[in-house]
Amino acid sequence: MGVYPVRSPSGIVPEHDFALTGDDTPFHLEGGRTLANVNVRYETYGNLNDDRSNAILVLHAFSGDAHAAGLHHPDDPTAGWWDLMIGPGRALDTNRYFVISSNVLGSCSGTTGPSSTDPDTGQRYAMRFPFVTIGDMVRLQHQLVTHLGIERLFAVVGGSMGGMQALDWAVRYPHAMERVVLLATTAQLSAQAIAFNEVGRNAIMSDPLWENGDYYDGPVPARGLAVARMIGHITYLSSESMRMKFGRRLQRGDAFAFDANDQFAVESYLAYQGEKFVDRFDANSYIYLSRAMDYFDLSVRYPHLEGAFAATRAAFLIISYSSDWLFTTAQSKEIVYALARAGRDVSYTEIDSPYGHDAFLLEHEIQSELVARFLASPRVYRGQHNEI
Amino acid sequence: MGVYPVRSPSGIVPEHDFALTGDDTPFHLEGGRTLANVNVRYETYGNLNDDRSNAILVLHAFSGDAHAAGLHHPDDPTAGWWDLMIGPGRALDTNRYFVISSNVLGSCSGTTGPSSTDPDTGQRYAMRFPFVTIGDMVRLQHQLVTHLGIERLFAVVGGSMGGMQALDWAVRYPHAMERVVLLATTAQLSAQAIAFNEVGRNAIMSDPLWENGDYYDGPVPARGLAVARMIGHITYLSSESMRMKFGRRLQRGDAFAFDANDQFAVESYLAYQGEKFVDRFDANSYIYLSRAMDYFDLSVRYPHLEGAFAATRAAFLIISYSSDWLFTTAQSKEIVYALARAGRDVSYTEIDSPYGHDAFLLEHEIQSELVARFLASPRVYRGQHNEI
Repeated sequence: MGVYPVRSPSGIVPEHDFALTGDDTPFHLEGGRTLANVNVRYETYGNLNDDRSNAILVLHAFSGDAHAAGLHHPDDPTAGWWDLMIGPGRALDTNRYFVISSNVLGSCSGTTGPSSTDPDTGQRYAMRFPFVTIGDMVRLQHQLVTHLGIERLFAVVGGSMGGMQALDWAVRYPHAMERVVLLATTAQLSAQAIAFNEVGRNAIMSDPLWENGDYYDGPVPARGLAVARMIGHITYLSSESMRMKFGRRLQRGDAFAFDANDQFAVESYLAYQGEKFVDRFDANSYIYLSRAMDYFDLSVRYPHLEGAFAATRAAFLIISYSSDWLFTTAQSKEIVYALARAGRDVSYTEIDSPYGHDAFLLEHEIQSELVARFLASPRVYRGQHNEI
Repeated sequence: MGVYPVRSPSGIVPEHDFALTGDDTPFHLEGGRTLANVNVRYETYGNLNDDRSNAILVLHAFSGDAHAAGLHHPDDPTAGWWDLMIGPGRALDTNRYFVISSNVLGSCSGTTGPSSTDPDTGQRYAMRFPFVTIGDMVRLQHQLVTHLGIERLFAVVGGSMGGMQALDWAVRYPHAMERVVLLATTAQLSAQAIAFNEVGRNAIMSDPLWENGDYYDGPVPARGLAVARMIGHITYLSSESMRMKFGRRLQRGDAFAFDANDQFAVESYLAYQGEKFVDRFDANSYIYLSRAMDYFDLSVRYPHLEGAFAATRAAFLIISYSSDWLFTTAQSKEIVYALARAGRDVSYTEIDSPYGHDAFLLEHEIQSELVARFLASPRVYRGQHNEI
């Protein structure tokens, strides 16, 4: 405790682009379609060592981007989304590790997605973009890692949708990493989470400005996207954290006016979150990425989840958060049990936190200690010995 | 168990209207405004006894109406919303009790609400309707009960928003009932529940067909109202019941097409619930009734919830449901503890159920036994003795 205080952003970082060319293009998708001219936006922090053995791939969540740490410009108001975890002396210590973060396929922050231009037509893809999967995101990340000259990652690390990607990495490329860190994630999206995603998509698609996705030459479906984000935010917090943060406090005054001006603090917060999101996220990407999560079910090709892990070689650290009701402790334990039954090296803990699903972005002190010690601890890399 | 099997609807019941006239009108609201020409739609089941001591007032939830039991016409496809609990031999036994059920103020099923015509203008109220409270609903119900010649109810019974009304009854008219039954309810709406209500309202008000509430001469804001209802339905179920009922099953086929035709069973269910709701509920009533719930905080005028119960005289039965995450067991226990500290007669149980908040509409077998035994048990009516 107290070993990992909040510090200033870890430095100024540039953005990079990796464009698939030659044998890598077109990029074949699990759904059967292909994509030409795929671009991947990524950032790196720290330095790759001489034997290229210190690379850690960080995998972002639903609304994240490649900008995981540091600043792009000295006057940026905020640092990358996981700056508390990435930097010199932090859990993903850039004095020791070379950290890679890339924007996922289908998103809207530099990597090809529905808001990109289709080279065949010169028009935005919009809803003509193919539906993508967590596996497609991972296969594209694998091409980036190969492009960077790395055969085996030291670790893949991801929370929420990033954890889904980390799970897919471990199963799809079992020899490509030594360690896997899974935070607040699940091996398959629950019916309730699919339901929340569907309501968000409905809110977007019910906005007349959505225009079947072809809104790029006019106003965006801001109200629908804001409603979708408001729903999302409720699921990222817990009832307890909302009680602590807002309770029944009014935004203005201390008594109801019993008119349309009454506003609870929690309403003002959600409205602000909804508006802010519209400025940085593409409504069609919301549809595609939420669908990719819906599709995710690691066990679907196996009789049991244990079967999915039979080929894995990495050591796993799994963390869940007590008040996370979107991706619950029970869902993390399913992964832990399946890995244990498959005879894999797995460490697990639940962090006691009131912050709900967002805890993996907030509980940096205890999380930093757990992740740093897991990464520093000696582990037997099972892939060298051809063990099962 | 098995004593209260599902039976056919308890009979054909007529609808009644009670129009406030004379000294009762205009009806003064807690927010300071008044309403002229208020109408109350109600139904009754069973017969009032000679000393008028066997009346039970049933209070409906957010989207309910006066039609709690029986059929209006022999060919009705479904019976009233609580037919499993009301009828000859059922928990609210119409061979013993005279059951009254009325549509709440602000709703859209016969009682005055935003879709009613403002007698001053000849136009629909729409958003010119005054904001109403749970207390306003209760004060109107009290006028109905008085109109029916009943000075003291045998019991008031309500679940969810109906439970809020029952709580308000017990505090506002402490001598007006012997018993109170509270199911799946709370003494104050949580920040999370306010947040869900606000997102639903936003979905409605973002629909361009809403037209600031003045949609009555044209198409209704169906898509916005459907999205609001979808959100509501997720909160009425539990993650466990959604897993049991839908899991990750697809609506059509057994493999993803990876196109816009993919649909999970849970998505189809929500879409159906959303569409069905639009046919029977008014979007403006959604706004007003959800706001009335947001406003509800029984303890707001007291230092502690216990203080609110100091004046009550009734005996209480409180039931919560283990998987209800909208109005939780913890919230019911707050009421139980406050009643116990105030020295009141209170019985409490949690029913172990996977059905979430909807359990109070579904767990009729065990619920019937608990409610029937509570109503039949001897209790000391404290109001006679001027205690505390």
